Amino acid sequence: MPSGEDDLIGRYFKPIATDPGALGLADDAAILKVGGDDLVITTDAIVEGVHFLSGDPPETVARKALRVNLSDLAAKGATPAGFVMSLALRNADEEWLASFARGLSDDATGFGCPLLGGDTVATPGPLTISITAFGRVPPGEMILRSRAEPGDRIVVSGTIGDASLGLAILTKKITVGDVAVREMLLGRYRMPQPRIALAESVRKFARAAMDVSDGLAGDLAKLCAASGVSAVIDAGSVPLSDAARGLMEQGRTCLESVVSGGDDYEILCTIAENSFGDFARSARSVGVAVTSIGTIVAGNMLPKWLDAEDDEIAFPRLSYSHF
Amino acid sequence: MPSGEDDLIGRYFKPIATDPGALGLADDAAILKVGGDDLVITTDAIVEGVHFLSGDPPETVARKALRVNLSDLAAKGATPAGFVMSLALRNADEEWLASFARGLSDDATGFGCPLLGGDTVATPGPLTISITAFGRVPPGEMILRSRAEPGDRIVVSGTIGDASLGLAILTKKITVGDVAVREMLLGRYRMPQPRIALAESVRKFARAAMDVSDGLAGDLAKLCAASGVSAVIDAGSVPLSDAARGLMEQGRTCLESVVSGGDDYEILCTIAENSFGDFARSARSVGVAVTSIGTIVAGNMLPKWLDAEDDEIAFPRLSYSHF
Repeated sequence: MPSGEDDLIGRYFKPIATDPGALGLADDAAILKVGGDDLVITTDAIVEGVHFLSGDPPETVARKALRVNLSDLAAKGATPAGFVMSLALRNADEEWLASFARGLSDDATGFGCPLLGGDTVATPGPLTISITAFGRVPPGEMILRSRAEPGDRIVVSGTIGDASLGLAILTKKITVGDVAVREMLLGRYRMPQPRIALAESVRKFARAAMDVSDGLAGDLAKLCAASGVSAVIDAGSVPLSDAARGLMEQGRTCLESVVSGGDDYEILCTIAENSFGDFARSARSVGVAVTSIGTIVAGNMLPKWLDAEDDEIAFPRLSYSHF
Repeated sequence: MPSGEDDLIGRYFKPIATDPGALGLADDAAILKVGGDDLVITTDAIVEGVHFLSGDPPETVARKALRVNLSDLAAKGATPAGFVMSLALRNADEEWLASFARGLSDDATGFGCPLLGGDTVATPGPLTISITAFGRVPPGEMILRSRAEPGDRIVVSGTIGDASLGLAILTKKITVGDVAVREMLLGRYRMPQPRIALAESVRKFARAAMDVSDGLAGDLAKLCAASGVSAVIDAGSVPLSDAARGLMEQGRTCLESVVSGGDDYEILCTIAENSFGDFARSARSVGVAVTSIGTIVAGNMLPKWLDAEDDEIAFPRLSYSHF
């Protein structure tokens, strides 16, 4: 005689919890055998109306909830080991849950990160999904934010600013007529691409790394502060999609929005100059584009962003903050 | 130039994150060195208006959020290793946060379970605290729900039903004039006592165990179902506080409410008959009361609850379910 809650877990989440350590989600806790590795732990919550919109497809909501955590693991050089999820639901809408579980299952399988356990609670408020994800690294090899050194190249993966443009479309701040462009930008907001494929290259070659989630400018400032260094960025070299570049050329977005927008889930890392070639080759071999955008310098000033004339660009707002 | 969010984390939570693996909450992830042990992982969220009330003191809210997770670790026989927290806040009320952090800090220290990391997000809805806690057990020694065997004694720690009476007082379903009684019952609702002290005894002597969080009757049924067994319970032997017994004698609560009320956070375990003496001595040595309430029997029927005349008591509702 299972309760509604157990029934819901059994129906939608037990099939995803294939790892033996999950104990079929039928125990109070999960077991993870870590062996000699260090365990890397990250936790990120996403809230309806803040990190995703109520109209977003349940499949992409699930994927985003997991992917924002996988992005952190990738930036730390870790291999995914599993995750636990706490789900605060207003009601148990079967159709929504089935679709949510399908998205979650696809990503858990695709990224080799099995569901180990969870908690499902009722809330009168917005749907909130909090995930804690686990990764493994060889002892002492987790890549920190705090090890950047003057002279390091500053590198980002993928392209920057697309997700914030996707959000701007969804919240009707901009309109984009071209369907393909619009869909690409919405997809970047709804379903980040965690750079798990790049994790090993980061672990092997990066001195410092973090994921870009709150805006490149602010996140770079955090990495520099943690490392006790500063940076000089060539703003023109920040990698942009054709879509973002097009909108910028039309004056419908600007550099500041792009680099402070957040939700990129790309990797920002610093690489010693003499390792950069190896890193770039390693990234190419796993099919992830990486772009050198500047250099770490000594000092404790905020990073300097330079335009094509080497004049400094001032950003009043560096990144997204919840409070 | 930290953002409001970073400032808040730095001010209130960084001082609690004393473990070196927490990296001062200044990185994307935490590191946990697990050595040769198995890692036990549990996750539980508490929602304002569901698991605690908006008028509850912030210190007890923090403690409850952590303790419901510690209770799971204790029932699995695990030693706490740390936790991560995701906090969905409506606003950054300094006074509330300072008090919340104080409660959290006291318990993190008291139970040897340091804060390793977290995420703070804004929500328009109820305050929601989701904690994932980690514990260690020697390889293969986590105690499961599914290993109870016919002939095992069924044992619970502490007393049952007090927390649900505390909630009944807070929600004005009952009134209790005696201040000491009222405070004791409210305290049991607001601040469970996780039986961490009993974890080692459970690991050494229990065959199966879980924590009682949704109501003793329902949780026992779950343990039996997981183990493929049934149980016979002597209802009169369920341990009650003087307060609960008094209210029951006055007809202001009843056995059904007591055993289906939830929020007890006691340990329910089964012990082979020939280990019971050792378990009881071990529990006594750490100062935790344990009471034998019945016996595991073969079969797949729901557990039988017998009154003083050996007649079966029927419970229409076994436990709390969110949906």
